[in-house]
Amino acid sequence: MAVPKTLEWVGGSDGFLRLLDQTRLPGEVAFRDCRTVDDVWEAIKMLRVRGAPAIGVAAAYGVVLGAQAGDAAGAIAHLRTSRPTAVNLFWALNRMAPIGGDTERMLAEAVAIDAEDRAMCDAIGRYGAEIVPDGGGVLTHCNAGSLATAGAGTALAVLYAAHADGKRFRVYADETRPLLQGARLTAWELQAGGLEVTVLCDNMAATLMRSGAVQVCVVGADRIAANGDAANKVGTYGVALLAKAHGIPVYIAAPSSTFDLSLVSGAAIPIEERDPREVTHGFGRQTVPDGVAVYNPAFDVTPAELLAGIITERGTIRPVTSANVAARLVDDSRK
Amino acid sequence: MAVPKTLEWVGGSDGFLRLLDQTRLPGEVAFRDCRTVDDVWEAIKMLRVRGAPAIGVAAAYGVVLGAQAGDAAGAIAHLRTSRPTAVNLFWALNRMAPIGGDTERMLAEAVAIDAEDRAMCDAIGRYGAEIVPDGGGVLTHCNAGSLATAGAGTALAVLYAAHADGKRFRVYADETRPLLQGARLTAWELQAGGLEVTVLCDNMAATLMRSGAVQVCVVGADRIAANGDAANKVGTYGVALLAKAHGIPVYIAAPSSTFDLSLVSGAAIPIEERDPREVTHGFGRQTVPDGVAVYNPAFDVTPAELLAGIITERGTIRPVTSANVAARLVDDSRK
Repeated sequence: MAVPKTLEWVGGSDGFLRLLDQTRLPGEVAFRDCRTVDDVWEAIKMLRVRGAPAIGVAAAYGVVLGAQAGDAAGAIAHLRTSRPTAVNLFWALNRMAPIGGDTERMLAEAVAIDAEDRAMCDAIGRYGAEIVPDGGGVLTHCNAGSLATAGAGTALAVLYAAHADGKRFRVYADETRPLLQGARLTAWELQAGGLEVTVLCDNMAATLMRSGAVQVCVVGADRIAANGDAANKVGTYGVALLAKAHGIPVYIAAPSSTFDLSLVSGAAIPIEERDPREVTHGFGRQTVPDGVAVYNPAFDVTPAELLAGIITERGTIRPVTSANVAARLVDDSRK
Repeated sequence: MAVPKTLEWVGGSDGFLRLLDQTRLPGEVAFRDCRTVDDVWEAIKMLRVRGAPAIGVAAAYGVVLGAQAGDAAGAIAHLRTSRPTAVNLFWALNRMAPIGGDTERMLAEAVAIDAEDRAMCDAIGRYGAEIVPDGGGVLTHCNAGSLATAGAGTALAVLYAAHADGKRFRVYADETRPLLQGARLTAWELQAGGLEVTVLCDNMAATLMRSGAVQVCVVGADRIAANGDAANKVGTYGVALLAKAHGIPVYIAAPSSTFDLSLVSGAAIPIEERDPREVTHGFGRQTVPDGVAVYNPAFDVTPAELLAGIITERGTIRPVTSANVAARLVDDSRK
């Protein structure tokens, strides 16, 4: 089984954005054609497309749809409101903004962002492959794979690259409540890629680590502050604390577009609180009694001191300090 | 709303065991009448009745059903195979075994176990109430409440007692994958009891603790070794590690029948591995692709050194050491 494309621009400057609807996986491989800015906004909001890099690329194409309708600036303003945490969204919109309203030039820029994302994934995979053991196990959380990017992923790109190098290992995928991106998406794409994968509930990671089955953890990120504090799918901070207690290194794999150097630390990263129904009615059946309060942050922040390194398309930041972050990103042409 | 009885013997020595079917909660309050040993075995196996103390009481009544059919010894042997981890099951069966086959005497012993369980819950509540803050929050995992016992519960008895004392606090209930006993059962009974409760996904506990919302954690146990290492619902060990990282004390509340002094440490506690379908099809919809491996231990073991204390019906063991466990249980007439 080949993994279908997460997102694809179909046609020329009068074309549209075709998304793999990730809310339907693994039961169904269904596509959603976005022909308006609202379609893209809804797809980002509802997590039909998700993963920080993929959100950025989708938003760039969304601006092209806005330009088709004669309002690129309005599209940029609207798309900014779709999700608050992943900074790649704002990064991509900021890249599109100065292009002006010409649809052809807009599309060229969106295609460039898309192509850069694919190249970024490959580079992260190459730099990161060395952290993967030959034999043993790797734990990941949520989905930072090909479904989260235009390319091979971030955290999972590292695993795909190590596997291509001939290393053999088992991937442990936290199911990742409430929306089960690990169970539904990571397991699906790793299996398609020929890797060995075991799904576990999030609360089983501690005893799995204690068993000795996990040698390294690798996850993605949605926004990284200047000091290396990293927001990622809720549960990542817990994984990092559990890993520390068992002496297991934790790596984040993320492109430079995930860094928000305007934030001194993770305390300033806005954390999206999502609809309680994701927890109470996640699977078409009510699992929490009516009237009970629900806590549903979409992300948490892992402090830099819990990270062994951050793998970027420019190399690995290790140890994770403000100075090392700055040194690795200093030639950032987009600053 | 009053919470219905978790289990109840209906009638005299020719009566039957009526269970609240906990697999149907919170959507439906349905009862299941067990008239044969097989009915009880199935109810324990399928978690229609669950919680270590309630399993013990249900098993005792199951032996009465065996005596009605003329085979109490066969009933004891069969019920031993229902679930491996909760030692209260074996404790109750061992108490029933020497009674012989007389149904009246069997029923009297089962009723005694039932009544002792209620008294045990009250005593645990009284001893434990002092750990609960007035204001602030308490985190619990799984369900160690009235639904897990014949009485007011173990961990939740502590909360009910503190609430009755006039303390006001918020209970944070981990939803507790895969079977959601926290979301479905703990939230339901605490709400019915008039306590403030918020449900969160298991992977949100770390960031909740970091926010300062949690002052203490209290959970139940299914088997406790002589050194205080405690098996409880999977995820408890993770909660204990996260709590340690945030300086939050963790208490276990469990009756003396939960101790297995034949085991030197938790390493010897058998851990039940359950059907992968609990993870892959937990909500009536497939959430993990076909062919993907699943890790599904029902319990994990929290080392004694992570526990601030163990609250029993004989007082609180604190600090948790082999010597203190022995001192608290030394007058155990059931040894």
